[in-house]
Amino acid sequence: MFTNTTRVEIQFGDCDPAGIVYYPNYFRFFDNATAALVSAALGMNKRAWLEVYGIAGIPMVDTGANFVRPARFGDVVEIRSEITELGRSSFSVRHVLSHGGEVAVEASEKRVWVVKDAAGNIKSAPLPDDVRHVLGGKE
Amino acid sequence: MFTNTTRVEIQFGDCDPAGIVYYPNYFRFFDNATAALVSAALGMNKRAWLEVYGIAGIPMVDTGANFVRPARFGDVVEIRSEITELGRSSFSVRHVLSHGGEVAVEASEKRVWVVKDAAGNIKSAPLPDDVRHVLGGKE
Amino acid sequence: MFTNTTRVEIQFGDCDPAGIVYYPNYFRFFDNATAALVSAALGMNKRAWLEVYGIAGIPMVDTGANFVRPARFGDVVEIRSEITELGRSSFSVRHVLSHGGEVAVEASEKRVWVVKDAAGNIKSAPLPDDVRHVLGGKE
Amino acid sequence: MFTNTTRVEIQFGDCDPAGIVYYPNYFRFFDNATAALVSAALGMNKRAWLEVYGIAGIPMVDTGANFVRPARFGDVVEIRSEITELGRSSFSVRHVLSHGGEVAVEASEKRVWVVKDAAGNIKSAPLPDDVRHVLGGKE
Repeated sequence: MFTNTTRVEIQFGDCDPAGIVYYPNYFRFFDNATAALVSAALGMNKRAWLEVYGIAGIPMVDTGANFVRPARFGDVVEIRSEITELGRSSFSVRHVLSHGGEVAVEASEKRVWVVKDAAGNIKSAPLPDDVRHVLGGKE
Repeated sequence: MFTNTTRVEIQFGDCDPAGIVYYPNYFRFFDNATAALVSAALGMNKRAWLEVYGIAGIPMVDTGANFVRPARFGDVVEIRSEITELGRSSFSVRHVLSHGGEVAVEASEKRVWVVKDAAGNIKSAPLPDDVRHVLGGKE
Repeated sequence: MFTNTTRVEIQFGDCDPAGIVYYPNYFRFFDNATAALVSAALGMNKRAWLEVYGIAGIPMVDTGANFVRPARFGDVVEIRSEITELGRSSFSVRHVLSHGGEVAVEASEKRVWVVKDAAGNIKSAPLPDDVRHVLGGKE
Repeated sequence: MFTNTTRVEIQFGDCDPAGIVYYPNYFRFFDNATAALVSAALGMNKRAWLEVYGIAGIPMVDTGANFVRPARFGDVVEIRSEITELGRSSFSVRHVLSHGGEVAVEASEKRVWVVKDAAGNIKSAPLPDDVRHVLGGKE
C-alpha cells in the first residue's frame, strides 16, 4: 500500500540527560511521518486535507514501538512509513526508523478518521473513497 | 508487585488543534509516572537513584498504548502504574490513565537498567537485588 | 495586582544532554503558571474561562527570560507569578522561578485576550470588566 | 557577522487548541536554528563541536521574543539567524522568523560557552579564537 520516506535530523533538545532521544519524541516524529505519508498520498498538506475533508484529525487508537538501538543528536534518521491496513473509518501505519542503514525503532499505529459533532465531541467517520483509494495504492 | 498512583492536570499546551491531548505527551506522562513509581519504591528521587546505583537511565525497550477516550485540558487524570514483570536487567510496567473513573489510556512498557561503558555507550546491567526486592513488593 | 504561586517538579525528560532544564520547557512552565494565575483569579480552570468568555486563548505578544542558575531534574521549583500591567485587551505577567530560596529564572510576558472572527482568524478583544477587576486585585 | 538561514515546516503537534504554534515551540525552533548557525560556521554538527571543543553546551543566559503574526501547521517558515555580539565567553544571536515574506517572530538571545568542572557543575569558558573568528565572519 502507500509508502513514504522522510528524514529527521535529531536535535540536541530531542535528547535527554542520557544523551539519547527522549523516547516520547519518537512518537512526535512518527506523527509527523504519518502526516507526511497522508499528505504525499493526497497531494496536499495536513491543514489542507483537514479542511477539504472536513475532519478534526486522525487521532491515535493504538500504537506500539520497539526501540532497537538508541539515536543521538546529530544523527540523521530515515523513517519509512507504510499503510498496512485500511478499515471502514480507520487505517494502520508501520514506521521503520533507521540510521546508517540499521533499524533503530520499529512502530505500528492505528488511527481513526474523525469529525466533530454539533456538541464539539469527536466521532469516527467513514474514510472517503478517494482517500481509501490513494492510501491503498502504490507510491 | 509495586504500585503507585500519580495525578496530572492536563494543560492547554499538552493539547493539539483538535483540542485533545497530543498523544506523544501521554508517553511523557507515563515516563514521569514510571520515574515516580521507582522513586516511591526506592524512597528517593530519580536523580538520587541514578547516582546511588551509578546508572545512565532506564531507557525504553518496548512500549504500547491503547487510547480509549480522549482527555482535554482542564481534566485532572489519574495514572495507576504497576510493575508487571522483573527480568534480569529489565522490568515491565503497566499504566492505566483514567479520568472521572473511566479508563482513557492503557499502556505497557519494558525498560532496561543501563550503565555507560568507558566509551560512553550504554549497555544493560543486572537489576541490583535491593531494587528487585522493592519493585517486586507490595506498595 | 493578582499573584499566584505554583510548584513544578523538574522531570528527567524536561532536561537536555547537559543534564539541565532544556530552556524552551521553562516557557511551557510559565505558560502553565499564567493559566494557573488567571484560573486562580477567576475561580475556574482555563477550559472553563475560555468557554465562559468565548475567547480562543491568551496568545503571547512578547516575552523575555533571564536564566540565572540552572535547574536539574529532581529539583522542585516554585514559580511566583504576578500581574504587572492591565491594558485594554492585553495584560502582562512577571514570573520568578526559584529553587531552594534562590532565583533561577526571571521572566516577563505580555498577552492578548483574543476571539476568533467568522473567518477563523484570531483578533484582540477588550478585557471584560470583571476579569480586569480580579486580575488587578490582591490575591 | 555570521548568518545562516534554516526552514521549518510547522507540524500539527507544534500547535495548540487555538490552532497556532504553541509559543514555547518557537524557542525549540530557535535553539535548533542557533545550533545550525554554529554548525554552519564551524563546518561540523553540534555533537561534533561539543566533542571537539570539550564543552557541555551553549546554555541560554537571556532571551526575548516578539510575536508579530501567528503561524499555523502547514506553514513553512524561514528563520534567518545572525551573530550580533561576541563576548569573552558568550555570544548573542538574533533570529527573524518569517512566513510568506512577512515577519512572524523576532527573537534575540545570549548564550554562554560552558564546560563541566570536576564536580559536574557547568561554568563559563572563553570562546576559542577560531570559534570567535568564524562566528565574527561573513557567511
